[in-house]
Amino acid sequence: MISAETRGVFAIAPTPFLPDGALDMASLGRMTERYVGCGVDGLTILGIMGEAHKLEPEESLSVVREVIAHAGGLPVVVGISAPGFAAMRRLSAAAMEMGAAGVMMTPPPSMRTDDQIAGWFAQAVAQIGSDVPFVLQDHPTATGVVMSNAVIRRVVAENPSCVMLKHEDWPGLDKISAIRNWQERGEMRALSILCGNGALFLDMEMRRGADGAMTGYAFAEMLRRVVDLAAQDRDAAQDLFDAHLPLLRYEHQPGIGLAVRKHILAQRGFIAHPDLRAPGAALNPAARAEVDYLLARLKARDRGCGL
Amino acid sequence: MISAETRGVFAIAPTPFLPDGALDMASLGRMTERYVGCGVDGLTILGIMGEAHKLEPEESLSVVREVIAHAGGLPVVVGISAPGFAAMRRLSAAAMEMGAAGVMMTPPPSMRTDDQIAGWFAQAVAQIGSDVPFVLQDHPTATGVVMSNAVIRRVVAENPSCVMLKHEDWPGLDKISAIRNWQERGEMRALSILCGNGALFLDMEMRRGADGAMTGYAFAEMLRRVVDLAAQDRDAAQDLFDAHLPLLRYEHQPGIGLAVRKHILAQRGFIAHPDLRAPGAALNPAARAEVDYLLARLKARDRGCGL
Amino acid sequence: MISAETRGVFAIAPTPFLPDGALDMASLGRMTERYVGCGVDGLTILGIMGEAHKLEPEESLSVVREVIAHAGGLPVVVGISAPGFAAMRRLSAAAMEMGAAGVMMTPPPSMRTDDQIAGWFAQAVAQIGSDVPFVLQDHPTATGVVMSNAVIRRVVAENPSCVMLKHEDWPGLDKISAIRNWQERGEMRALSILCGNGALFLDMEMRRGADGAMTGYAFAEMLRRVVDLAAQDRDAAQDLFDAHLPLLRYEHQPGIGLAVRKHILAQRGFIAHPDLRAPGAALNPAARAEVDYLLARLKARDRGCGL
Amino acid sequence: MISAETRGVFAIAPTPFLPDGALDMASLGRMTERYVGCGVDGLTILGIMGEAHKLEPEESLSVVREVIAHAGGLPVVVGISAPGFAAMRRLSAAAMEMGAAGVMMTPPPSMRTDDQIAGWFAQAVAQIGSDVPFVLQDHPTATGVVMSNAVIRRVVAENPSCVMLKHEDWPGLDKISAIRNWQERGEMRALSILCGNGALFLDMEMRRGADGAMTGYAFAEMLRRVVDLAAQDRDAAQDLFDAHLPLLRYEHQPGIGLAVRKHILAQRGFIAHPDLRAPGAALNPAARAEVDYLLARLKARDRGCGL
Repeated sequence: MISAETRGVFAIAPTPFLPDGALDMASLGRMTERYVGCGVDGLTILGIMGEAHKLEPEESLSVVREVIAHAGGLPVVVGISAPGFAAMRRLSAAAMEMGAAGVMMTPPPSMRTDDQIAGWFAQAVAQIGSDVPFVLQDHPTATGVVMSNAVIRRVVAENPSCVMLKHEDWPGLDKISAIRNWQERGEMRALSILCGNGALFLDMEMRRGADGAMTGYAFAEMLRRVVDLAAQDRDAAQDLFDAHLPLLRYEHQPGIGLAVRKHILAQRGFIAHPDLRAPGAALNPAARAEVDYLLARLKARDRGCGL
Repeated sequence: MISAETRGVFAIAPTPFLPDGALDMASLGRMTERYVGCGVDGLTILGIMGEAHKLEPEESLSVVREVIAHAGGLPVVVGISAPGFAAMRRLSAAAMEMGAAGVMMTPPPSMRTDDQIAGWFAQAVAQIGSDVPFVLQDHPTATGVVMSNAVIRRVVAENPSCVMLKHEDWPGLDKISAIRNWQERGEMRALSILCGNGALFLDMEMRRGADGAMTGYAFAEMLRRVVDLAAQDRDAAQDLFDAHLPLLRYEHQPGIGLAVRKHILAQRGFIAHPDLRAPGAALNPAARAEVDYLLARLKARDRGCGL
Repeated sequence: MISAETRGVFAIAPTPFLPDGALDMASLGRMTERYVGCGVDGLTILGIMGEAHKLEPEESLSVVREVIAHAGGLPVVVGISAPGFAAMRRLSAAAMEMGAAGVMMTPPPSMRTDDQIAGWFAQAVAQIGSDVPFVLQDHPTATGVVMSNAVIRRVVAENPSCVMLKHEDWPGLDKISAIRNWQERGEMRALSILCGNGALFLDMEMRRGADGAMTGYAFAEMLRRVVDLAAQDRDAAQDLFDAHLPLLRYEHQPGIGLAVRKHILAQRGFIAHPDLRAPGAALNPAARAEVDYLLARLKARDRGCGL
Repeated sequence: MISAETRGVFAIAPTPFLPDGALDMASLGRMTERYVGCGVDGLTILGIMGEAHKLEPEESLSVVREVIAHAGGLPVVVGISAPGFAAMRRLSAAAMEMGAAGVMMTPPPSMRTDDQIAGWFAQAVAQIGSDVPFVLQDHPTATGVVMSNAVIRRVVAENPSCVMLKHEDWPGLDKISAIRNWQERGEMRALSILCGNGALFLDMEMRRGADGAMTGYAFAEMLRRVVDLAAQDRDAAQDLFDAHLPLLRYEHQPGIGLAVRKHILAQRGFIAHPDLRAPGAALNPAARAEVDYLLARLKARDRGCGL
């Protein structure tokens, strides 16, 4: 089970598909094992980048089952966000039954005010059960839901099962500082903060007090090493981060970012095919050439990158 | 099958739930029969007001099956909009197999430009099959997708299976006129236009050239009579419409409108319970009293209203 | 000066323009006198419907000066919302110097969380001075800023110069009830609530506890009588309201509503020309015919309407 | 005058303020001369990052006058976007009279469909005059207006005075390729493309066919060299770009990015004070320390950076 003490690197795994759009079950297991081989501390599946909203319920269950089966006992967090609570309750219950370590959720775009957001989480917890540890995902760029520091503190206070913040506000560095300040002054209980947002600010986030990364950048090895180095050797962590930044920034494009990520993961052998399920863009030749150029440079700059 | 020649009144039916949130299968059949008894020309199910996004796939299929079974041969249109094409394809195929008369769809909120919107419909038709007649739903207030007259004409031109516009732009009267003008000049092919938007402008829409109504106002009898009277006796149609307008306006409130509608349909015996599935608001006593006041006045003003 | 005890009807006045787009100074005085003749308790100018964002600063000052000069001592509220505080501060100071009774403001669309909204009002008050009584405008449909009941209470608590709520959330009836409940329980200080939103729910709003109307419907006489009748004779108030509802609903169309309003005000002789300043739509013949039809019916149903 | 043949680097200049919020006229001249000293080909003022929306009209004119006076004959482009056409017309006319080389504009957020966007530009050109060369700013992240490739081609075709695209869609690389493809096939006339978006993709944009950069990154010297090197030595350009990327990414944060930029420009002596006019955030100590850390690293990696 994840908890407020969870730290380290959770890789956000994509959902592999065959070129015809069917789930690629064979890749699921291999991909999971490859992530484990990167030294991650856990996996997160069925998030926004997992194309969760394109899956049928029984497909989601297959993904959960298969990933947990190959995760070698590492904790697996399952994204359950959906427009209706019925679907969330069912997926949460099934995932926990299968051995998930917790769930992740974020409100629908119509939630605007602090009261709406806090009310939604209270209802959601009532539905999935207060015994299921959950990750509060704060990702306004993707969801349109803007959460103040105050509303995050409130959700954490009102829901003991909220154990982790997936931090991906942009800009968001001061949000980490604000939470850590509240905690130091005893005004907020413990909470794990893992950072997403494609790791675009991981260098700074670790110094602001984050506990690690939960994101899908195609080189989880980099996340691993930057998180480990952050406290020991800032300059070394920054050098490594900087070597990846040109590619990381390229992957962090709305809309086509996932296609970039799957292209690289397919090249690395994590998944068999780079395809997204429809509707979803494919990389055109110009974009592939740009990625390949950046990969070649990365290989020269970070020999331990995994290529 | 619906076609470009379809006219009249299609009632948008809600999805009845039990107080515990389960599908109310018993109400489904009775509700359908009551709508048929109102003299409607067809039914539309699983739209935005049908809480479709809160249903599990197998629940959606149950709703389709049950409504068609009780519709006495009237055409039933099934809303299939979903974030992913896989879910849309599956529901469309199953619904048509069960005897649906067509499907209704609208793009996700991220679709902004004309090319994005037209491209989405082309992809969607490729997924569900070009032999399935579909209703283009144009409802920017609910979806955030703004469609110009030009892009509607383009979608109609590019997709022969687009046979109907569910018109609920606001303001939208000139959109009807623009389409009818293009058709008169031979610049656009035939298209059925049924009006939604809670019927708030049905009086004017019929005179602009609409073919009828497709909306969920709790008194389908009014829709029936206004649509029938529109061409024969404008003043009589307007008198009738005006008698309903205070309530109709009350029902047309974002967020709580569906609770108002279900409250009235429960009072009228169409459904057993006024409950929405979570997340969804219930009417508080003040709102119920307001509705009851408006209902009492309506009863005095329109003796044929069905109360 | 407006205060928390202000009640009654404040007409939202449009800004009259000549067909070439210049300010129509001659109409300004006449229009103001006509509103005074309708028996309103005050005027509000330079709001969203006053095309304030299309005016140059010196034009805004001319409008304020002219309206106050013809208002016969009635209180005039001046809308000062602008993207920057410098413009707000300057207009507020000049308007108060000229004899305005207070100002009205609402945050820019980027304000999302409770803290952002409350922070914006605190900053705004620091800029215009805490001695200037202000109206908090809550109009999410137009501004995109969604304010919870709680954040309104907070702004009122934090800013003693906030004396009035221009209530135009949609739906918003429960917001009035919530504020009145807090006040009854002593949890919120006195606050005047005048209702906008085109008066579409004025009938119900008065019964929920509103103090009156602040809106621009083209027949301020109706607002006057409905507000006066509300407490004495509910049915009579509702009859009168219902007679206007078909037109009121027609005027309440986003985008073209202001053109409808100016068309009627020009017909009534309040202003010389129905023109909006660019960018702004004009009524086409079909729309004008619809308005004329509704006006003819209104005249038959409410002989005291002012036509 | 700018034209479709304009190439190179246009620095987006901020508007300097004194700590009390007044315009810092003394800094305006010095800042302009420093930009000229960086070797830029032109300057762009009163854009989004120029806090243009916080300025009074006469302040805007002062800025234009002062910058042109110190620009040593380099072309100066003036941002004129405003909610109303009256303000746009007046600023455009005054700026051109003072010697501006052209204006820049983008539609208000309410513009959604292709027809709305194209219609807005047609109206705007009618207002400012078809003899004023203008830059079409395409910046959806800041404005909310999403422009398809097709609508840009249409605006260019319909308005001969549109001579340049300020390209800052995100992702936007394929937009450059699409325009260049159309031009190669003779389906679109010549158009200068200068890239904004904080230069986050300048490396790739130059290779896709951009003519240069128009952005406000605090080291215009880098833009100069990357633009010059792009065609000659890709790897050298990329090395230089990569050295700046950690800081460039840090500056490219919504909301606080401008404070970062002004902090650096103040350190570099371009402006006397880093202050934004209210409402606007200041950098807190943690953020300043992060910037200083990145600056120290940049200095070590790019000795010609200007520090």
